[in-house]
Amino acid sequence: MTGTPKPAVCVLGTGLIGGSVLRAAAAAGYEAFGYNRSEVGAKAARLDGYDVISDVEAVLKRAAERDALIVIGVPMTALDAVLTDVKTFAPDCVLTDVISIKAPVAAAVKQHELANHYVGGHPMAGTNESGWAASSPDLFKQAAWAVSVDPGVKADQFRRVARLALDCGAVVVPVLAVEHDRAVARISHLPHVLAEALAIEGTNGGPLALGLAAGSFRDGTRVAATAPDLVRAICEPNAAALLDVLDDTLEVLTEARDRLRRDGTLTELVEAGHDGRTDYDDHQRWTITDVRPGDHNWLTKLIDAGRSGGVIDALD
Amino acid sequence: MTGTPKPAVCVLGTGLIGGSVLRAAAAAGYEAFGYNRSEVGAKAARLDGYDVISDVEAVLKRAAERDALIVIGVPMTALDAVLTDVKTFAPDCVLTDVISIKAPVAAAVKQHELANHYVGGHPMAGTNESGWAASSPDLFKQAAWAVSVDPGVKADQFRRVARLALDCGAVVVPVLAVEHDRAVARISHLPHVLAEALAIEGTNGGPLALGLAAGSFRDGTRVAATAPDLVRAICEPNAAALLDVLDDTLEVLTEARDRLRRDGTLTELVEAGHDGRTDYDDHQRWTITDVRPGDHNWLTKLIDAGRSGGVIDALD
Repeated sequence: MTGTPKPAVCVLGTGLIGGSVLRAAAAAGYEAFGYNRSEVGAKAARLDGYDVISDVEAVLKRAAERDALIVIGVPMTALDAVLTDVKTFAPDCVLTDVISIKAPVAAAVKQHELANHYVGGHPMAGTNESGWAASSPDLFKQAAWAVSVDPGVKADQFRRVARLALDCGAVVVPVLAVEHDRAVARISHLPHVLAEALAIEGTNGGPLALGLAAGSFRDGTRVAATAPDLVRAICEPNAAALLDVLDDTLEVLTEARDRLRRDGTLTELVEAGHDGRTDYDDHQRWTITDVRPGDHNWLTKLIDAGRSGGVIDALD
Repeated sequence: MTGTPKPAVCVLGTGLIGGSVLRAAAAAGYEAFGYNRSEVGAKAARLDGYDVISDVEAVLKRAAERDALIVIGVPMTALDAVLTDVKTFAPDCVLTDVISIKAPVAAAVKQHELANHYVGGHPMAGTNESGWAASSPDLFKQAAWAVSVDPGVKADQFRRVARLALDCGAVVVPVLAVEHDRAVARISHLPHVLAEALAIEGTNGGPLALGLAAGSFRDGTRVAATAPDLVRAICEPNAAALLDVLDDTLEVLTEARDRLRRDGTLTELVEAGHDGRTDYDDHQRWTITDVRPGDHNWLTKLIDAGRSGGVIDALD
């Protein structure tokens, strides 16, 4: 990618996403090492040839010594404990995360007085599976990787996080934390909620309905196969944004229901839905070429670019 | 499959489903021919080597002469016109259909005084595409094919329709028209409605949301890519059953929204949804072996068996 030597990367939490970051970073030539709370999980990673232990103090001391980029890959519920450890053992390392929401993570980081070194991140990739066994170095190929451009983000730190995302095969979407959280409520958390509701309605039809179910039900309920605790850990911390979208969805569905009852037609819903899916199919990423991190007003320019679909696919 | 010679099959409407029936029947050794209203569509089928013309009178006269099983594959909106033609030119042929709802079709058939020869059908298969070009002889492999066991269905006619379904590679789910319609409201029509709503919410998030969208949004909106007229033709004739399921879905979602607002948790929704998807993944078809069409009480026995997940996978 560049002539700059790759710094060390320290991944805390080697589940599906963190584990995939560790694998992808190692494959890209980083000195990559990690921590997993459970020794069983750490051992599984070691057996696959990765440098993962379950001693957080030792890992973070090594991170501090190597000036590693720390990547937090634990669930939101474990964030506070991990930030306490980072503050204690590696307070000067550049810090990012791969947690599915951004504003609450940024607030926690601030509370732990680590905001000066923090640039939030969120790779948009996943499967129904979880844990190290499901992780893959290719998970992020061509994926969007949201990276924070909130006020206060420093250009050199942004570059380090963005470079890791690019080296993992993703493109970088620059975004404000609060706008990220509103967007993922729509395209990640709402899909979970609707899939759960659809799965409930399907099974309430008994064996006859389940036996007749074909592709539309299978695809529509796919993410309901995700472990309940994981779905809750993803959606619940984003309650405020999700509630706004849920309110709106209930209005859309209620209006469609009323129109079907009154006039026998679903035409407005179906046409607007088809337009929406067409927008998605037609959506084209465009490459941001005229903004370099550190330029005058670079944060504002990247915020605008990200809002209108721009991505960073290389750093000079 | 059996030693009985295969009778002729006449398919009216050679779009995705009808076209696939024509291809599969021909591949299974039937004398298969068909009609398509548009000469362009008929010609496309002929160019692929199939016996399809756009002259409905000629096709139906041939069907009457060959004592063909007539398969209606036109959309619900074209049903009346086709039944008028069948009544005029081939009133004594055994009649089935592959339309996505069953009670309204049965009512129309009765109105046209064709009920004596009619056994409703519905293969549970499809894609987002439509038209002859999307049809495939393999569309029904391992699919469920609902076949009516409503009062008045005759055993020999049931056998003819069921045999076609089996020869197309499907298994037969015996079902009452009204119970079929309630079940597909849950597992086919509700998925369409929710996919449309999700697509609307996604595009309302603008390029940022669409650019961050990954697998859960893609799969959750897949069927919103279906042509709007087709979605309406599938869902609107089943308005009564769909309204019941929509009412229930709105209750489930409203309760989840209220609980999230009040207590910050989605636990009931997520756990029930996960259970529902698990039921679907665990659902096992079982083979009905102790009921032969024509036996004493065979209709009642098949209704019960179908309700509890039984399928017919062979006929003796």
